[in-house]
Amino acid sequence: MNTAAIISSLIEQRFLPQGGLRQVFLVACGGSLVDMYPANYFLNSEATTLHSYMMTANEFVYAAPKTLGKQSLTIVCSHGGDTPESVAAAKLAQSRGSVTVTLTHNEHASLINFSDSNLLYAWGEDSQVINNPMAIILSLCVEALQQSEGFAGYSDFLTGMTQIDEVIAKARRQVQARSAAFADRYAQESLFYILSSGASYGHAYGFAICSLMEMQWLNAASIHSGEYFHGPFEVTDATTPWILMINEGRTRALDERARSFLQQYGEKIEIVDARELGLGVVPASVVEYFNPVLFYSVMCEYRAALAQVRQHPLETRRYMGQVAY
Amino acid sequence: MNTAAIISSLIEQRFLPQGGLRQVFLVACGGSLVDMYPANYFLNSEATTLHSYMMTANEFVYAAPKTLGKQSLTIVCSHGGDTPESVAAAKLAQSRGSVTVTLTHNEHASLINFSDSNLLYAWGEDSQVINNPMAIILSLCVEALQQSEGFAGYSDFLTGMTQIDEVIAKARRQVQARSAAFADRYAQESLFYILSSGASYGHAYGFAICSLMEMQWLNAASIHSGEYFHGPFEVTDATTPWILMINEGRTRALDERARSFLQQYGEKIEIVDARELGLGVVPASVVEYFNPVLFYSVMCEYRAALAQVRQHPLETRRYMGQVAY
Repeated sequence: MNTAAIISSLIEQRFLPQGGLRQVFLVACGGSLVDMYPANYFLNSEATTLHSYMMTANEFVYAAPKTLGKQSLTIVCSHGGDTPESVAAAKLAQSRGSVTVTLTHNEHASLINFSDSNLLYAWGEDSQVINNPMAIILSLCVEALQQSEGFAGYSDFLTGMTQIDEVIAKARRQVQARSAAFADRYAQESLFYILSSGASYGHAYGFAICSLMEMQWLNAASIHSGEYFHGPFEVTDATTPWILMINEGRTRALDERARSFLQQYGEKIEIVDARELGLGVVPASVVEYFNPVLFYSVMCEYRAALAQVRQHPLETRRYMGQVAY
Repeated sequence: MNTAAIISSLIEQRFLPQGGLRQVFLVACGGSLVDMYPANYFLNSEATTLHSYMMTANEFVYAAPKTLGKQSLTIVCSHGGDTPESVAAAKLAQSRGSVTVTLTHNEHASLINFSDSNLLYAWGEDSQVINNPMAIILSLCVEALQQSEGFAGYSDFLTGMTQIDEVIAKARRQVQARSAAFADRYAQESLFYILSSGASYGHAYGFAICSLMEMQWLNAASIHSGEYFHGPFEVTDATTPWILMINEGRTRALDERARSFLQQYGEKIEIVDARELGLGVVPASVVEYFNPVLFYSVMCEYRAALAQVRQHPLETRRYMGQVAY
């Protein structure tokens, strides 16, 4: 995806005549919203004047921030491209004068009707993660920052984008045996807690709501590693499983603290450590933003193994697409 | 609390010489972070140039945004005032040149050592909610917006602040019987999902992590009403209880949609409706920001009733303050 060209064209033709790009709105639902978390975290961390918002689509539709307007870039992602709230969000954004960039896997998506620039993305086992929505959205936001106010880690980020697919391919092989063991050990569990921090907190949430609740009908909750010690840790005991994704980068200390506590007071602890999985080859200035890209792919192995052992296919739904809502 | 005078003094003496107030950082842990959610939601909704960030304290300490500096107001809240991460956050903020406003219930708090302006707040059954941290922090942010770029709903907000304590007193009486019935019905449950949207989503999270996980050692998870339909709803069945807080104001439609679905496909549904509890007297332009203030007080009745029936006092901890972590 040539995200640099897309952003430079929009800045030149659409934003500069309005005084420049001021806000980025990241709007989607469920798994697609999860894919936006790293970009929002990145902009909040690195931007000085560009303002980032991340909202679930229907809240954006009913309670759009006042600032949404001609200096706003609204990025909307929907895999099927016909999620009504996401389509309505893109329509609302355009009606307020915002530029919309949409991402979908469906070339006939309704979403494209409200798009100033649409990205048809790759999906599936054989696609490179840099062509999947999480990396594309992050890349769009890196370009938006670089081209509006500059980003010191820009060239390091481009380096990371050339490295991440190889890191992931190796990591997926590395977790084959342990994800199978995980599935065997936890096949009978009904509730999982998922912990992480920094750019990866969104994927902790995503693994809970998409991989476990939606795809396995299992109870689940995400907890930020920093928040764990301020309430949630009181439920830690020998009976409930915890999955902890340990980041490489600035927030690693938060995850390591959670690991120490869990290993002392819990019994069912699954650790997925980005450092041990080789993410450290990515330049230090940007490595933290690549954690969730790695974790997404690696955790796909865990959920596939669990689905197989539980004989509950990942595609089975009882409500989504089955009943009216 | 004279939040107007505090903000005007800081703007005049500290921010104007630096070019004005540009960012607000809302930093705390657990229940105190929950108290900041409405203020963050408010600034994201209403501000055009002021940028708001909300972060758990340890993530702020390890991964503070680049923009933190002399044009930043950092608000740090800690009930006991000695939470190490929160104290470190205030210290870091000052070291970066940010002005700090701290809130605590402890006049000897370490937090005060790193405070440019400290607010000792009231707490307990006999305190007015407008003197509790959630309302104080919201009020500080309303003042920050009004005094930096203006806020059209300002006088309506002040009206709401004069009304909310009476609304709450009436609502607490109104839920006495139903919170007792709730406790009787759900005394044996081990897992609750908590739904809400808009300014109240933070309190859905707070009820899950503080009231249930921390104070009752019960499993719990918060789900945004808009996100419910994009994954989480697949676990809806006759066995798991859902508590839905329905907002008055812009995001009400999201909560009502969740109610319809839950009533059709779930069995154990507890509805707490701000409209039915009388919040509609607050001016429409600002009513949504008062929902979580109401819900906090009302849900205290529910958790107290549950604690009594379960014979698990709200103060009992196995880890917090009991072991090293």
